[in-house]
Amino acid sequence: MNQDISRDPIAFISQADHALSTLWIKELQLAMPEEKILAFSDMSAIEREQCRVAIVANPDPAELSTLPRLEWIHSVWAGVERLMADLGDTKLKIVRLVDPQLATTMAEAVLAWTLYLHRQMPLYKQQQKLRLWKAQEYITPAKKTVSILGLGALGEAAAKCLISAGFKLCGWSRNPKQIKNVQCFSGNDGLKEMLAQTNILICLLPLTPETRYLLDAEKISMLPAGAELINFARGAIIRDLDLRAALDSTHLNHAVLDVFEVEPLPPNEWHWDHPRVTVLPHCSAPTNRNTASAIVAKNIENYRLSGAIPAHVDTRRGY
Amino acid sequence: MNQDISRDPIAFISQADHALSTLWIKELQLAMPEEKILAFSDMSAIEREQCRVAIVANPDPAELSTLPRLEWIHSVWAGVERLMADLGDTKLKIVRLVDPQLATTMAEAVLAWTLYLHRQMPLYKQQQKLRLWKAQEYITPAKKTVSILGLGALGEAAAKCLISAGFKLCGWSRNPKQIKNVQCFSGNDGLKEMLAQTNILICLLPLTPETRYLLDAEKISMLPAGAELINFARGAIIRDLDLRAALDSTHLNHAVLDVFEVEPLPPNEWHWDHPRVTVLPHCSAPTNRNTASAIVAKNIENYRLSGAIPAHVDTRRGY
Repeated sequence: MNQDISRDPIAFISQADHALSTLWIKELQLAMPEEKILAFSDMSAIEREQCRVAIVANPDPAELSTLPRLEWIHSVWAGVERLMADLGDTKLKIVRLVDPQLATTMAEAVLAWTLYLHRQMPLYKQQQKLRLWKAQEYITPAKKTVSILGLGALGEAAAKCLISAGFKLCGWSRNPKQIKNVQCFSGNDGLKEMLAQTNILICLLPLTPETRYLLDAEKISMLPAGAELINFARGAIIRDLDLRAALDSTHLNHAVLDVFEVEPLPPNEWHWDHPRVTVLPHCSAPTNRNTASAIVAKNIENYRLSGAIPAHVDTRRGY
Repeated sequence: MNQDISRDPIAFISQADHALSTLWIKELQLAMPEEKILAFSDMSAIEREQCRVAIVANPDPAELSTLPRLEWIHSVWAGVERLMADLGDTKLKIVRLVDPQLATTMAEAVLAWTLYLHRQMPLYKQQQKLRLWKAQEYITPAKKTVSILGLGALGEAAAKCLISAGFKLCGWSRNPKQIKNVQCFSGNDGLKEMLAQTNILICLLPLTPETRYLLDAEKISMLPAGAELINFARGAIIRDLDLRAALDSTHLNHAVLDVFEVEPLPPNEWHWDHPRVTVLPHCSAPTNRNTASAIVAKNIENYRLSGAIPAHVDTRRGY
């Protein structure tokens, strides 16, 4: 009996297409050969009855509610605010993916698109269209301040890369932090002080009730004229129409946006053909199925051994 | 008399416009207040008679030939192949600029545009134009080989940045070299071996009789299908129409070109609107007037003290 319970099947629940779900199940099964991982649609009534753990990637909440013994779910994504909203008031524990590879990939994306702005690639692209040969004045990175909103694992890894590239670094977090070679700020006054000296602002915050629409017209106006912005976190952290106004007035020179309130970004949205916007399809730091599966496997193994559910999301704090 | 000779005036000779020449003379004069630095057009007949050293930025050779005692010229640029061609068979010693800041700025440019290709920015730009939301498969830098042609000061600095970013590095130079974490090649066979395993090829070679048209149809065909190329050195290192053919056939996926056989790139050239070409206006590593002036000043000070002309270009080797 114990043996049975210790090897209850694990559901993989996702609204992704069949091909992608199959890739995930294959990779997860390879990472934990002793477990039985099944797509929700492939589970028998008895298997659904037994299931205590599910691995999820944008799951249909209705499917989760058909698993009576389900105790916890492991997301293969780092951001879980949509999952929490979908589940509402629940006793289910949510474990989000904390993958060092994700921080590495995100830090690379931050470096890549910071250099894209620093080296004025959008302007040179426009000049190419006009067949205009004109080298712009070059400013060394030591004379530019890059500020990161959010100093968790992703923010710290990104800061390290940007320091190596020679930029001056500032960072802002909910609670005061100390990071080598980063001028750290916290609180509302700290945010204002930081924004006033920022040339390139990078958003890596989780979306919570406190960060929703954090960047509105007032905050954006505190940035110096000509500042630039990268949002690799969640669309709703920026008030979209305030961003548009700041770009239209050229107060903001350019925005690189990888995330939007509605994704995929609908074809009629203004961002697509705004000359000061680079639209990316949520590609800054894709989950690596291989490293993510190894981490999920490790967490499930620990749970099998100790019965303890891994560190999970604080639903009040929101991450 | 000795005193007079030790402080002969220094000519600044350039075909740049008056405003830019004035900026240069101002910065150079600040860096060596004991010297008398004059624009060629401002020099008296006696001053021209006395002048033994000239600082040059794309000079008119006719002006140089009116200075009877001229011994050596200090270019404020790193590339001197045009200067050598203009001067022809001459006894004048040519000193080129070797500025660590230049290597830093060039390494940054190499990193920036390598990440531009690695992160598929040209493709995402096209998708934005089509309002297409599609995240491409992400490949980690550990699975990509970046190869550098030219392992001088610029190539070594660039390699270091790319290794930090996680890429596999290869490098090719005229003479065999050893650089930590770089698989080094030399010679014609070495070049072929390296090209066959290269995903992104970066050209940082000086233009010499040996490197002119080094990259022709045969060499380009040795790169794997879908390879990409960055030329930050000199246009004539690549056979232009062979490059075009390789891009047209999609054997090469993309080329970032900062240098061309004729600069500014004429408006009717094919590069401007080729979808697989990024045209840059020779902006990858602009000379920094401030750091360059300090280096020129140091070289001239040494010459004043010892009478020895600093390390100069080997006109047979070409750099």
